[in-house]
Amino acid sequence: DNSTQKQKVTLIEGDGIGPEISLAVQRIFEGAGVPIEWEPVDVKPIVLSSGKTTIPDKVITSLQANRIGLKGPLETQIGKGKISLNLTLRKVFNLYANVRPCRSIPGIITKYKDVNLVTIRENTEGEYSGIEHQIVDGVVQSIKLITREASLRVAEYAFNYATMEGRKSVCAVHKSNIMRASDGLFLKCCDAVAEKYPDISYNKTLIDTCCLNLVNDPSQYDVLVMPNLYGDILSDLCAGLIGGLGVTPSGNMGKDGLALFEAVHGTAPDIAGQDKANPIALILSACMMTTHMGLGMYGKQIENAVYKCLAEGAKTGDLGGKMKCSEFTDAIIEMIHEDK
Amino acid sequence: DNSTQKQKVTLIEGDGIGPEISLAVQRIFEGAGVPIEWEPVDVKPIVLSSGKTTIPDKVITSLQANRIGLKGPLETQIGKGKISLNLTLRKVFNLYANVRPCRSIPGIITKYKDVNLVTIRENTEGEYSGIEHQIVDGVVQSIKLITREASLRVAEYAFNYATMEGRKSVCAVHKSNIMRASDGLFLKCCDAVAEKYPDISYNKTLIDTCCLNLVNDPSQYDVLVMPNLYGDILSDLCAGLIGGLGVTPSGNMGKDGLALFEAVHGTAPDIAGQDKANPIALILSACMMTTHMGLGMYGKQIENAVYKCLAEGAKTGDLGGKMKCSEFTDAIIEMIHEDK
Ligand SMILES: CC(C)[C@H](C(=O)O)[C@@H](O)C(=O)O
Ligand SMILES: CC(C)[C@H](C(=O)O)[C@@H](O)C(=O)O
Repeated sequence: DNSTQKQKVTLIEGDGIGPEISLAVQRIFEGAGVPIEWEPVDVKPIVLSSGKTTIPDKVITSLQANRIGLKGPLETQIGKGKISLNLTLRKVFNLYANVRPCRSIPGIITKYKDVNLVTIRENTEGEYSGIEHQIVDGVVQSIKLITREASLRVAEYAFNYATMEGRKSVCAVHKSNIMRASDGLFLKCCDAVAEKYPDISYNKTLIDTCCLNLVNDPSQYDVLVMPNLYGDILSDLCAGLIGGLGVTPSGNMGKDGLALFEAVHGTAPDIAGQDKANPIALILSACMMTTHMGLGMYGKQIENAVYKCLAEGAKTGDLGGKMKCSEFTDAIIEMIHEDK
Repeated sequence: DNSTQKQKVTLIEGDGIGPEISLAVQRIFEGAGVPIEWEPVDVKPIVLSSGKTTIPDKVITSLQANRIGLKGPLETQIGKGKISLNLTLRKVFNLYANVRPCRSIPGIITKYKDVNLVTIRENTEGEYSGIEHQIVDGVVQSIKLITREASLRVAEYAFNYATMEGRKSVCAVHKSNIMRASDGLFLKCCDAVAEKYPDISYNKTLIDTCCLNLVNDPSQYDVLVMPNLYGDILSDLCAGLIGGLGVTPSGNMGKDGLALFEAVHGTAPDIAGQDKANPIALILSACMMTTHMGLGMYGKQIENAVYKCLAEGAKTGDLGGKMKCSEFTDAIIEMIHEDK
């Protein structure tokens, strides 16, 4: 029995189309023979006596034990005290770097060709501190928090990532002409880390200029590293360059290898349960995960199969195709077997 | 002597290529017979005994008297206490709404066609409050300030602008799922103002989603209104869609009609004084200005001449053409005369 060699992975299927696209990944991984064992956990929010919501203990213990998770989309909690479960997961596990590679995908036509860049976003602080005050009626302040610790940590992640992935340059994105102290500190941290990586070229761009440059010519960027909100904005912009959130993978990195990979698109309740969902973002996130687990060989194989299927026109409805989620999944599995 | 009927306009030529492109505007306005009289003022920074910089009194008195100004690019002040002169002008004159129309320009080829939208940016507060604290070494906070007064004011401006310009919809851009109190207040203000304009359709989009949508299909937007930093980011992104800051006009609106129009590109010191600069952004800003002054007929005529010249291939070097700034200016003046 070789199941003893299988690494366990926490699986949060998610809401809406989450279960369908999670099933697609499970079937593809089985088809490719990836030596992992899924541990499905349910993330339905727990309502505390204070009225606030949190995630079930089971999720925490599973992810803490397995160190690796894959996650479908979660419904947004609406209302006072209802904290986003996505953000709760980032916070509880201190997932400090959000990594989103954006590469042009064969068969998915956008205005841009040959996009190949990665956004690395500080994922724990900045404008996401959650600290806001109403000073007087009609006067509110939100606090952007930048610390040396978190900035150094994400800068280190970015330069190390660039080195490991054979990338040439890292660009720090900021608005330090306005937020001199906070973004200034972030930049100083990037500067310090850059010194330790003489082989990676290093530069800085204002967030506004960066957006202008990206829509103009994304090929000028390679790895981009930045505070939380800029990362939220730029990662969506970059996803737009290659076809949207439905085709863009994402990984949230924590300490000592703990990591949670996820599809960042919505739950698409309108088509949930109808076998119409596009599983690509979750599949490619799962491929990123294999690399992280030292099983990148399988991920590459699956990625290639996805790309080949897309290039041949196999597509779900959202991409202008006619396939059901299960049919698209079948096609990928078949392609994997053909390639063997 | 009909000079008594001429309205006076404060002219801040600016640094670097500022004087050349300002001359282009002056010549074109003369060629078109626009009944204004320029009052050039110098904005060279004054260094206070505290070490901080400010703008000369002459600028303030001139703009206060004339109520209308046109401004070329200003050098960025670098160093502690050196406050951006651009920001100083916005602050001193309480220029609360920054308006940037982005329309595809004939002859300027980008990946996008038929872009026709306007970003309206709150211009006095938000992340630009200038309030930052170092809590302890390595821990910095910047304060984003949102007030009901400023939010209502810019929302009112946006809906009024949409009405006046015959635009169909206003979209408020925010991140209120994260900054619930501050962006929440901004949205509530937009909601309240929207009620007064039943003929303008109104909706809201997250800043990240908005960027994704913009690179994908900008035609879905018309007027966009938002807090300061999102405006800084989106206005650059949108400028990128139509060819960059070199071709995008901008106006800063204050109370009681006080307004300062400006080219938002840089000073381009590398080509300054060589008659190579592209004057389009300043010319189109000056055209916006004519509309604001009730002289829009002249502005339209100049704009048309610029568009025709560009469509015929008349271009400066930065746009891939061969013309000097003065030659391009000559071409526009000639075109105006031909059209008469
Ligand atoms: C869902 C939302 C809270 C989240 C964010 O703002 O970070 C999303 O936009 C993302 O990029 O993962
Ligand atoms: C020069 C800079 C301070 C300014 C800003 O951030 O507002 C510029 O980017 C702009 O958009 O006008």
